[in-house]
Amino acid sequence: MTEQATEQKVAEAQTAALELAKLDDGVRSAALHDVADAIEANHERVLEANAKDVEEAEELLEAGEYSRALVDRLELSASKLDDIAEMVRSVAEQDDPLGETLEARRLDDDLELYKVGVPIGVIGTVFESRPDALVQIAALSLKSGNAVILKGGSEASHSNRVLYELVREATADVPDGWAQLIEAREDVTTLLGMDDAVDLLMPRGSSEFVSYIQNNTSIPVLGHTEGVCHVFVDSEADLSMAEDVAFDAKVQYPAVCNAVETLLVHEAVAEDFLPAMVDRYRDADVTLRGDAGTRDVVDVDPATDEDWKTEYGDLELSIKVVDSLTAAIDHINAHGSKHTESIVTEDADRAGTFMRSIDAASVFHNASTRFADGYRYGLGAEVGISTGKIHARGPVGLEGLTTYKYHLEGDGQLVATYSGENAKPYLHEEFAGEWNPGHRSGTGE
Amino acid sequence: MTEQATEQKVAEAQTAALELAKLDDGVRSAALHDVADAIEANHERVLEANAKDVEEAEELLEAGEYSRALVDRLELSASKLDDIAEMVRSVAEQDDPLGETLEARRLDDDLELYKVGVPIGVIGTVFESRPDALVQIAALSLKSGNAVILKGGSEASHSNRVLYELVREATADVPDGWAQLIEAREDVTTLLGMDDAVDLLMPRGSSEFVSYIQNNTSIPVLGHTEGVCHVFVDSEADLSMAEDVAFDAKVQYPAVCNAVETLLVHEAVAEDFLPAMVDRYRDADVTLRGDAGTRDVVDVDPATDEDWKTEYGDLELSIKVVDSLTAAIDHINAHGSKHTESIVTEDADRAGTFMRSIDAASVFHNASTRFADGYRYGLGAEVGISTGKIHARGPVGLEGLTTYKYHLEGDGQLVATYSGENAKPYLHEEFAGEWNPGHRSGTGE
Repeated sequence: MTEQATEQKVAEAQTAALELAKLDDGVRSAALHDVADAIEANHERVLEANAKDVEEAEELLEAGEYSRALVDRLELSASKLDDIAEMVRSVAEQDDPLGETLEARRLDDDLELYKVGVPIGVIGTVFESRPDALVQIAALSLKSGNAVILKGGSEASHSNRVLYELVREATADVPDGWAQLIEAREDVTTLLGMDDAVDLLMPRGSSEFVSYIQNNTSIPVLGHTEGVCHVFVDSEADLSMAEDVAFDAKVQYPAVCNAVETLLVHEAVAEDFLPAMVDRYRDADVTLRGDAGTRDVVDVDPATDEDWKTEYGDLELSIKVVDSLTAAIDHINAHGSKHTESIVTEDADRAGTFMRSIDAASVFHNASTRFADGYRYGLGAEVGISTGKIHARGPVGLEGLTTYKYHLEGDGQLVATYSGENAKPYLHEEFAGEWNPGHRSGTGE
Repeated sequence: MTEQATEQKVAEAQTAALELAKLDDGVRSAALHDVADAIEANHERVLEANAKDVEEAEELLEAGEYSRALVDRLELSASKLDDIAEMVRSVAEQDDPLGETLEARRLDDDLELYKVGVPIGVIGTVFESRPDALVQIAALSLKSGNAVILKGGSEASHSNRVLYELVREATADVPDGWAQLIEAREDVTTLLGMDDAVDLLMPRGSSEFVSYIQNNTSIPVLGHTEGVCHVFVDSEADLSMAEDVAFDAKVQYPAVCNAVETLLVHEAVAEDFLPAMVDRYRDADVTLRGDAGTRDVVDVDPATDEDWKTEYGDLELSIKVVDSLTAAIDHINAHGSKHTESIVTEDADRAGTFMRSIDAASVFHNASTRFADGYRYGLGAEVGISTGKIHARGPVGLEGLTTYKYHLEGDGQLVATYSGENAKPYLHEEFAGEWNPGHRSGTGE
């Protein structure tokens, strides 16, 4: 696709975004229900396209270029499509993230300021090859009133094209152009340069990929880089609880970003804790490495400095013995990725010190790091996980796809009245009110 | 200064930021009162340094390199220093922007999630040559618990150095290294590259300068580019009110970003409205340009396409006659800078359409655009104005220098319990509670 074609698509999305911002939740949600119905009614069309993707991927698998896991992730089935339709319906049923009056303040009599939740505008997304990603991202964008540029993995191009067509056809009542599909790598380059048209980028994929995006655009990026999470077994820990938490945090699902990568153990409990813990990990096939303090107590391979900053994403774990709470905090602040950190201790003061001292999106006391997730947090549909600190942090729900604007309702007030020697003072009184224009008088356009 | 020296300073700020995050508001506010006292007690020391800056600037003024206005802005006096001290005290007296529990949700019995307000971390600032800027930015950063890198205009370097020393000396109770002064342009380049140490950049200055920063870093930028604001005089306007609002929006203070640059007039009222309005602007020495529709009614110079996107920042104004509310909305969305837009109309429906349709940080009904300001909005001390849509939009108060983290308090819960076939369901109940650890038991470190 040419640069011009991509620019044209983004321009269409920009126009649509202005209309989308005015659309009632009723219309947005009804359109999403239509998308779900369309996916259910068009199994064959989607599966046919998907079969082409799978076929091409199988060839590349044979050529040794793709992994079996990639091909498996790519493949759709009737039941997977029903799951996708169900997911879209659940997004439709979420509370409307828009239109709420977040604050209302009376600046003076008849001069009322409202801070109102609104969509961000145009969101550029680049995502992995799972074909359900396109539908999920489109659904979240529409629910939050945003226009969206969709770029999926090239492995899923046939599936994505058909799913995109279904989404567009089913959302005929939504301002045309709200969702745009781009397909080539050059289109992404064009997108990254359009900082006056695209308001936010949401890349999904490897840490390297997200960093690449961040380094090649001046558009704000909401992205997740890596998860180097820790569990700290404190001197005051209930050791049986610590064993369960540390086991769950690694073994329950090791491939995800909120799994633990390094276990820190206070030296006061290392001898009591480590032997049983290590046996349990080994029974679950976890490969272990440890520092000198660990290897004084249990027989594991030595850990290198590289281990302390590695996201294994697998059944691998490094272990370090520390001599104090402070040493644990310092290690985490130096080597963690500000994602999710957990302390196991019966001492609430020490837990408080840990939680206040650690700079991370999520800090837990006596709970598995695996709880760091939008669904588990009760945020509803998860837009993604952010390892940045600006705008949205940690698991991000639909709220993360919104911003606000200020509406000021006056009756002709001038700043001159409130300035200079005889300046009228402001009231600045908060009040409970919803911005609700257009119902005082009205003759229409 | 060498690259290494700047890196060292940022590293010190990073260490200090972790400690600052734990500091009570009492300590932060007391330190700010000490800063105010120190400024009052050291008039001579500051004025002596300032005299050097002014002397050097006078030389460059004579050489034709500086403007009179720049030299005037640079010059401090005893009364200006007292104003600065007063400003610092008012920041100290603001409500604590930190530590508040923003949300509390029970995920299950004894598994409680708290979303807690925290500082952002390390903020990099680059600001204009007014010497009060350094003190203001340092005060806002400390009040919000952030470490700050300060880079002021080189014209104010003597003043900035002394003011920085006073700030550091007066804040001896605050974790050392919380404020860092950098002085050379190369130091800014180093700063822009430190995306793993600096959490947010706040540049102040020209639009070009802010854009330069945005284009040369992957650190998030909170900045203000330009203000191309409009007043739309609708067909249903009270024309006397419209005249007052349009006059105030331009003339009350034309040099600022929330002043109006283009006046849009509905064709139905152009003949009744424009002649008197133009006379009034001319009496105030406003240079006017208009489109063909305007020039059919009043005698002004022609406006070019360039005018519609120009921030004059002066007693200059362009005027355009539009044939509908929709045309006004379209013009603003095409040419505005998403800053502040105002409609004057007696018709609330039309006001509602305008406010919902315009994509800008502030949209007003029957009020001067000049109200778009943190102080007037009642946000307390103003950190800056953002023309971006992410994190903070429009006038930004201390809250814009904060983010949040999640604290989860459990008693050993595992994700395995809530997964798979016999998964325990989550409760996800909101409740009114403050995170308050460390007071259940406690043996200390």
